[in-house]
Amino acid sequence: MPRFKLTIEYDGAPFWGWQWQDNGPSVQGCLKHAASKLNESIVEVIGAGRTDSGVHALGQVAHLDLDKNLSTDTVRDAINQHLRPHPIAVLSCEEVSADFHARFSATKRHYIYRIINRRPPLTLDKGKIWRMGTKLDVDAMHAAGQHLVGEHDFTTFRDVRCQSKSPVKTLDKITVRQVADEIELTCSARSFLHRQVRSITGSLVEIGRGNWTERDLLSALKARDRAACAVVAPADGLYLERVDY
Amino acid sequence: MPRFKLTIEYDGAPFWGWQWQDNGPSVQGCLKHAASKLNESIVEVIGAGRTDSGVHALGQVAHLDLDKNLSTDTVRDAINQHLRPHPIAVLSCEEVSADFHARFSATKRHYIYRIINRRPPLTLDKGKIWRMGTKLDVDAMHAAGQHLVGEHDFTTFRDVRCQSKSPVKTLDKITVRQVADEIELTCSARSFLHRQVRSITGSLVEIGRGNWTERDLLSALKARDRAACAVVAPADGLYLERVDY
Repeated sequence: MPRFKLTIEYDGAPFWGWQWQDNGPSVQGCLKHAASKLNESIVEVIGAGRTDSGVHALGQVAHLDLDKNLSTDTVRDAINQHLRPHPIAVLSCEEVSADFHARFSATKRHYIYRIINRRPPLTLDKGKIWRMGTKLDVDAMHAAGQHLVGEHDFTTFRDVRCQSKSPVKTLDKITVRQVADEIELTCSARSFLHRQVRSITGSLVEIGRGNWTERDLLSALKARDRAACAVVAPADGLYLERVDY
Repeated sequence: MPRFKLTIEYDGAPFWGWQWQDNGPSVQGCLKHAASKLNESIVEVIGAGRTDSGVHALGQVAHLDLDKNLSTDTVRDAINQHLRPHPIAVLSCEEVSADFHARFSATKRHYIYRIINRRPPLTLDKGKIWRMGTKLDVDAMHAAGQHLVGEHDFTTFRDVRCQSKSPVKTLDKITVRQVADEIELTCSARSFLHRQVRSITGSLVEIGRGNWTERDLLSALKARDRAACAVVAPADGLYLERVDY
C-alpha cells in the first residue's frame, strides 16, 4: 500500500469547500472519485486543511494510499485526467512513508488574502480577489496586524461553527503589503480556526479604511466575542498558499 | 460635444471580439450600449485596435463624444454601471481635444502573450493563459524573435482575412522572458496585422520546443506565404496591454 502526497491547486468557486459533502460538490469528493479510478477499492483522500466554500488553493496538500505501485508521474497524470472538467489540478506527487499524514504531520500553513484597491469593477480577476473601492492605509493594516501575532484566544476571529477544541492559537506571522493597486495579506501558523484569516482580514480592512484604530482591534481581540469581529472578508480573495512539513 | 478617452480592461472570453457584430456579443457593442444611456442619441465608440474573439485587454483605449459636459468620474462610473454584468471595466476616463482619435492618434500598441510551461491542467488561470506541457527554451525563443524586429513583409504572420492594405509592418520590439513556470512574450509596434502576435507566438513556440531552428523562422518570414506559419497560438493568452499616444 504505497502512500502518496499530492500538492493540489484549485479554483474554489464551484465547490462547497474542500470537505466531502453529501449534498454538494467538494474538492475532496472530486479527488476521491478521480483517485478511486486508479484503485480496486474506494480511495480516501486526507487534506491538510479544510478550505471553506469558494476559497482557492495554490498548494493544498493531501495524502492517499493506493493498492498498486504506480509511478508518481502516473498517479499525478491519471488523477488529473479523471478530475476533468473540474478546476482542480494535482501539481506534484511524491511517495511518502506510511507515517506521513497530510493533516497531522503539517508544521505550518500559509494563507494569502488578495485585495484590489480600485473603483472600477473586476473583469479578468472576477471571483479571484476582493475589490475595495475605498483607499486603504496598508501601513496601518500591517502595523495593527502585528498585535495579533503570538498566542491568543481568537474567539472573536473564529466562526461560531468552528469545531476546534480550543480557540487559543499561535499566529506566527502576518504581513500586509501593496504592489500597484493590489494588496496582499499573508498569514502563517501551525493551524487556523474556521474563518480565522477572513475574520482577521475583515477587521484589518476596518483599520485600513480608518474606521477602526489599533485600540479597537485590541479591544475586539480581548473581547473574545464573535460579535466584536468586523464583517468577514469574502471567500473570493483567500488562497491556501502552502503547507510545510 | 466633449470628447472622452477611455482606458478599458476586459475578459475577452464571452465576446466575439472588440468590433461590433450584428450576430454576437462584442466589447464595442456593450460599450456603445452603456455609453448611449448617458446621451440623447446613440454614441459611437471608436477603439484603438480590434482585438479578436477571446482576446483580453488590460489597457484598450477608445474615444467617444457625449452631448453633455459630464465629469470624467461620472462618465467612468456611469458607463461601468451600465456595463454590468459584462466583464468589461472602464479603468480611467479623461477629456481630450476634438482631434484626438483612439485609432489614428495611437503611436504604439503593446501586446503581451502569456504561456505557462507546466504539465498539470489549468484551474485558476483557465482561459487566461496558454498551457504548454513541453519544456520551452525561452532564450532560443527570445533570440529568434529578434530576427522579426524591424520592417518586414509579414504576410506569413497575418490571417488571410486581414484587411490591412499592406503586409509590411515595423515591429519595434519583441521580448520573451520567464518567471517561475510562466513565460511572457511582449510585442510593440505602431500597428499590427490581424493575428500577427498569435502567429508569431505560435512560430516562436516551435523554436522553443526545438522543432524549428532560427533558419526555419527566417525561411517562414521570407516565404511571405501564410502556409509557412506554424499553428497560431490560441486567443486565451493574448492581452492588449497598452496603447501609447
